[in-house]
Amino acid sequence: MQDAFSFRLISADGAARRGEISTPRGAIRTPAFMPVGTAATVKAMFLDSVRAAGSDVVLANTYHLMLRPGAERIAALGGLHKFMRWPHPILTDSGGYQVMSLAKLRKVSEQGVTFRSHLDGAMFELSPERAIEIQNLLGADIAMQLDECLRLPAPEAEVARAMRLSLRWAERCKRAFEAVPPGRALFGIVQGGVAPTLRSESARELVRIGFHGYAIGGLAVGEPQDVMLATVEETMIELPAEKPRYLMGVGEPDDLLAAVARGIDMFDCVLPTRAGRHALAYTRNGKINIRNARHAEDPRPLDESSDCPAARDYSRAYLHHLAKARDYSRAYLHHLAKANEMLGAMLLTWANVAYYQQLMDGIRAAVAARRLKDFAAETRARWTQEPR
Amino acid sequence: MQDAFSFRLISADGAARRGEISTPRGAIRTPAFMPVGTAATVKAMFLDSVRAAGSDVVLANTYHLMLRPGAERIAALGGLHKFMRWPHPILTDSGGYQVMSLAKLRKVSEQGVTFRSHLDGAMFELSPERAIEIQNLLGADIAMQLDECLRLPAPEAEVARAMRLSLRWAERCKRAFEAVPPGRALFGIVQGGVAPTLRSESARELVRIGFHGYAIGGLAVGEPQDVMLATVEETMIELPAEKPRYLMGVGEPDDLLAAVARGIDMFDCVLPTRAGRHALAYTRNGKINIRNARHAEDPRPLDESSDCPAARDYSRAYLHHLAKARDYSRAYLHHLAKANEMLGAMLLTWANVAYYQQLMDGIRAAVAARRLKDFAAETRARWTQEPR
Repeated sequence: MQDAFSFRLISADGAARRGEISTPRGAIRTPAFMPVGTAATVKAMFLDSVRAAGSDVVLANTYHLMLRPGAERIAALGGLHKFMRWPHPILTDSGGYQVMSLAKLRKVSEQGVTFRSHLDGAMFELSPERAIEIQNLLGADIAMQLDECLRLPAPEAEVARAMRLSLRWAERCKRAFEAVPPGRALFGIVQGGVAPTLRSESARELVRIGFHGYAIGGLAVGEPQDVMLATVEETMIELPAEKPRYLMGVGEPDDLLAAVARGIDMFDCVLPTRAGRHALAYTRNGKINIRNARHAEDPRPLDESSDCPAARDYSRAYLHHLAKARDYSRAYLHHLAKANEMLGAMLLTWANVAYYQQLMDGIRAAVAARRLKDFAAETRARWTQEPR
Repeated sequence: MQDAFSFRLISADGAARRGEISTPRGAIRTPAFMPVGTAATVKAMFLDSVRAAGSDVVLANTYHLMLRPGAERIAALGGLHKFMRWPHPILTDSGGYQVMSLAKLRKVSEQGVTFRSHLDGAMFELSPERAIEIQNLLGADIAMQLDECLRLPAPEAEVARAMRLSLRWAERCKRAFEAVPPGRALFGIVQGGVAPTLRSESARELVRIGFHGYAIGGLAVGEPQDVMLATVEETMIELPAEKPRYLMGVGEPDDLLAAVARGIDMFDCVLPTRAGRHALAYTRNGKINIRNARHAEDPRPLDESSDCPAARDYSRAYLHHLAKARDYSRAYLHHLAKANEMLGAMLLTWANVAYYQQLMDGIRAAVAARRLKDFAAETRARWTQEPR
């Protein structure tokens, strides 16, 4: 166990970086993909499988956990790691995004945000100080500042107002974070919509305040990929090379390739898990909608080459015995999806998380070998050219 | 691999028997509990976990599989074992019970039964010959005769008519079964409601026809336990000691103890899996409704002594790595249940199947040691006396 949070750059390939984050709970190989464990569970998966698939870190949602079962209750039970049985690093968001997307009767003021729970209508307050307190109670290894997330599109003046409010909240989060035990990290979140000058201002000011890492928020909300990537590029200019950079809520496998090439180190997204519950598989050979009738009599697995679960700190005997998604035929997966059987969601979610982590493994190896461009071209060609 | 289906009695304790069924796909230790894999999946479980929990055999439902994905399709894909990735013994029911409980517009004639699928309204026919053909296409190691299952209560004349029709269907099933490859078994099903004379007549006639084993059907449909057990006792008198006896659709753990003491060798029931999806846990210390608020802050596991998964043909390394239900706190399981998270159903189903198999292990050991009565008393005391 190391006591400090740190980030080490191992190699670079153009703007892309291969690195490693150290936390007291273990290392995070970057570029990293973080599966989303919204309510203290990565939906439809055992966390052992999430780990075996090659995940170094998972994300949990402050909004959901503060509503149910409550941060104080989780703390009383020994913290989120123990509660959900995941002894490895956890990043928690601050709740800002989900207050915007899920809560009712939101009211934003300088002090913070008040809202009604979407579960039972109970009133809650979330201030920068409370967001840090909650994440500390949960025991997050990486906490996020509270920010105001707008529904886009919004007038630029409104985007600027929310961005500057988020900067003042960033200052207060940093101050509140001084009470958090050492070894944990706090990330700032760059906002500013798709206006380059606002993004630059946000990034510069956050760097001035000083965080352990910097996230880019407010993207992946429906804008075209080229707009998202242009915003990432603009923002990158202002971010220090020696800190990890996290693109929140992204994304499709193609987005990961493109964003890594622009210097992003961390991602989270519900796509692999949500798709797994809706009969959509991400594979080396592209996306497969397993409900499609053409799979009904197909004896082939989703991907005969998949090594799900990826081998890391598991014994060979374990890997040998553990069923792999490739052991199941498309015909069987099709049947499970048509019958709405839970096992269908369990297998596809697992296969999707495994594919995402296999992709990240490939990305990390390619950056280390300074061949990310070729790797990306090969990977994209395979998504579209191979017979599925 | 042995080629023949056979049953061997190992020891007895009063009417209770410890035995072993041999099939070409492996042995079934009796008394045996068969988890229900309705639509080619034991709901919410990986079959590896079903196996690791100590299951020698699972049951699959002819009715569900003939409707979707279809017996011919499963046969074209290599049979049910390969389809669902369960290389061990499978028992299939004949569809008769589910036609009664699920299908629409049933019409029973001497020839068989016609009905509309509850899924899409399509018309199907199920005759004794077709029931055997379907079970043969699926590749069942143990097939069941087609019987007419009545909704009870019904007039005794009606019960007698259905029982005698089922006997004529039994004859036709036996004849149809001559075309099935060797090594597979066909069981007859004793019917006759709760009328001792009808049950005796049914059992005697089935024994005259001759089957590899005998099931008692038409019970566990809401009658009191003492009525069920009295009917079991009546029927037992007519059944040959050298063949396995299967009490269909039973039951609660207490029913298993009581029925084994009366000479039953095999059981199937949806209770452990259905309860697992409804936040109800079966444990050594009785039933636990994990939704109950008193579990919300309880750091204890469901049962700290549970060895789920039970060790059989798995390596120690596998067992060491595999998460066990006892690794999760009641507070976490409570949270998952309240949040309707799939992992809650996954964990409780697993724990329930493991408990049922742990109970059967205990029963088998107790019969072998000629102390079933003491074991049953101790087990029942524990269900009610221990603080939960």
